[in-house]
Amino acid sequence: MPEPRLRIDGQAQTFVAADDRGLAYGDGVFRTLAIDNGQVVARVFQYERLAHDCAALDIRGPSAAWLDAELGQLIEAGDTGVAKITVTRGSGGRGYTPPVPARPRVIIAFTPGMPTPPDTLALDIAATRLACQPLFAGVKHLNRLEQVWARREAGASAAPDLAMTDTQGRLVATTMRNLLFMDPAGLWHTPGLARCGIAGATRARLMQAAEQAGRPVVEVDIHAASIADFCAAIACNSIGGAIAVSRIGENRFEHSPAMARRAAAWLAATA
Amino acid sequence: MPEPRLRIDGQAQTFVAADDRGLAYGDGVFRTLAIDNGQVVARVFQYERLAHDCAALDIRGPSAAWLDAELGQLIEAGDTGVAKITVTRGSGGRGYTPPVPARPRVIIAFTPGMPTPPDTLALDIAATRLACQPLFAGVKHLNRLEQVWARREAGASAAPDLAMTDTQGRLVATTMRNLLFMDPAGLWHTPGLARCGIAGATRARLMQAAEQAGRPVVEVDIHAASIADFCAAIACNSIGGAIAVSRIGENRFEHSPAMARRAAAWLAATA
Repeated sequence: MPEPRLRIDGQAQTFVAADDRGLAYGDGVFRTLAIDNGQVVARVFQYERLAHDCAALDIRGPSAAWLDAELGQLIEAGDTGVAKITVTRGSGGRGYTPPVPARPRVIIAFTPGMPTPPDTLALDIAATRLACQPLFAGVKHLNRLEQVWARREAGASAAPDLAMTDTQGRLVATTMRNLLFMDPAGLWHTPGLARCGIAGATRARLMQAAEQAGRPVVEVDIHAASIADFCAAIACNSIGGAIAVSRIGENRFEHSPAMARRAAAWLAATA
Repeated sequence: MPEPRLRIDGQAQTFVAADDRGLAYGDGVFRTLAIDNGQVVARVFQYERLAHDCAALDIRGPSAAWLDAELGQLIEAGDTGVAKITVTRGSGGRGYTPPVPARPRVIIAFTPGMPTPPDTLALDIAATRLACQPLFAGVKHLNRLEQVWARREAGASAAPDLAMTDTQGRLVATTMRNLLFMDPAGLWHTPGLARCGIAGATRARLMQAAEQAGRPVVEVDIHAASIADFCAAIACNSIGGAIAVSRIGENRFEHSPAMARRAAAWLAATA
């Protein structure tokens, strides 16, 4: 993989103060953005999610104009790749108490080259389960040990991805993607994220497009037993887009390729 | 507060690589150690807890001899203060999957000066609740947003500390201390840490001392309604030792000062 290009707080820089609270406590948020031909894909959605997450942790996040300028320093016209924006509460003394005022730190990394997503995903269910913590549900914060554990589990079985349930057995997402389902009536559903999980920008794009098409996506609790109610499923994130899911556990989905094509069309219309 | 003295991977250094997985995902652990007159208080317990936590995350932790040497570089004879040892999985590329092999990073900070602990703690119960995640329960990992949130809550009400319950209502700890209780028969109890919470070194010292005294501490589920079953409570950590708890919520404890004296004597014997 090529080396990432890095900027920290507006400077070309590859090191962070060791007293950063992102390092000490995971006290911060991040988002991963696809860069296509020098442009941020779904820029408005991405910035909106980042701002939402900063607000959720009461961190003063960067402005859209500042992010544009900083990404402009890292990305050249024609570049394709993956950008990651991390915003932490900045440096802090010993102890959990956030400094007041805090000086948030923004780390932006751009890695050229776009990984090729799989055509289809067959998902086993991870043994690693997500804890239910409504306080931070939906937020892409830096407390991500559960995802690390689940990716490790996927690696051990050479699986490209795994479906994840919460500790109460509800299906939530995959280790790195949101999930959406279609029922036989053509209505789309997605796991609600009031207790855990990350509300991705691509999920938001699909939900907005569905709403505008007059068929809003319904957020629901999906227990293992109710997966069989659906006839199609897709997994999505900002890098790979929407991918047809052929099965989750023992449940096979016949119409996932059609659902993935519909999603791809909607994503193309909201990029 | 005086500036901390820092060493990273065996070098005097104050910056870490921005691709550290502790920063990216909280993929690491830490421990806070009291330094008294140039010596680590309860060194054996502290190193044991750190090694336990590294093993829990499958991170190759530093040896006791290496830690001794590194702390020796930072701490002079006669120094009193607080040392913090952080071990992360080290640098990693994009994505949750841990690098194989990983090169763990060790950050050691020593801050001269010992905060004066309160004589007694009156604890309200935090609105911030701890999620139940058995996978990492007991481990002092770097995913600590819940504690950050609870300390923020304490700060907002100018409380020195708050008691914390899990999302199912069981009492677990305070924002920065373990809790132990005594019943009217003189038997000690402490919240079990199978679902969440941090197993502190001071808690371990008290549990070992009680066991050697023939009255082992019993790990139990303590729901709000059962707090009233106890007549004494203490809160403990490595920096403040054991502190008498005068009340938790509406429950007052008459015999906490005696329990705290017993605990202090045991801690003096295991330093």
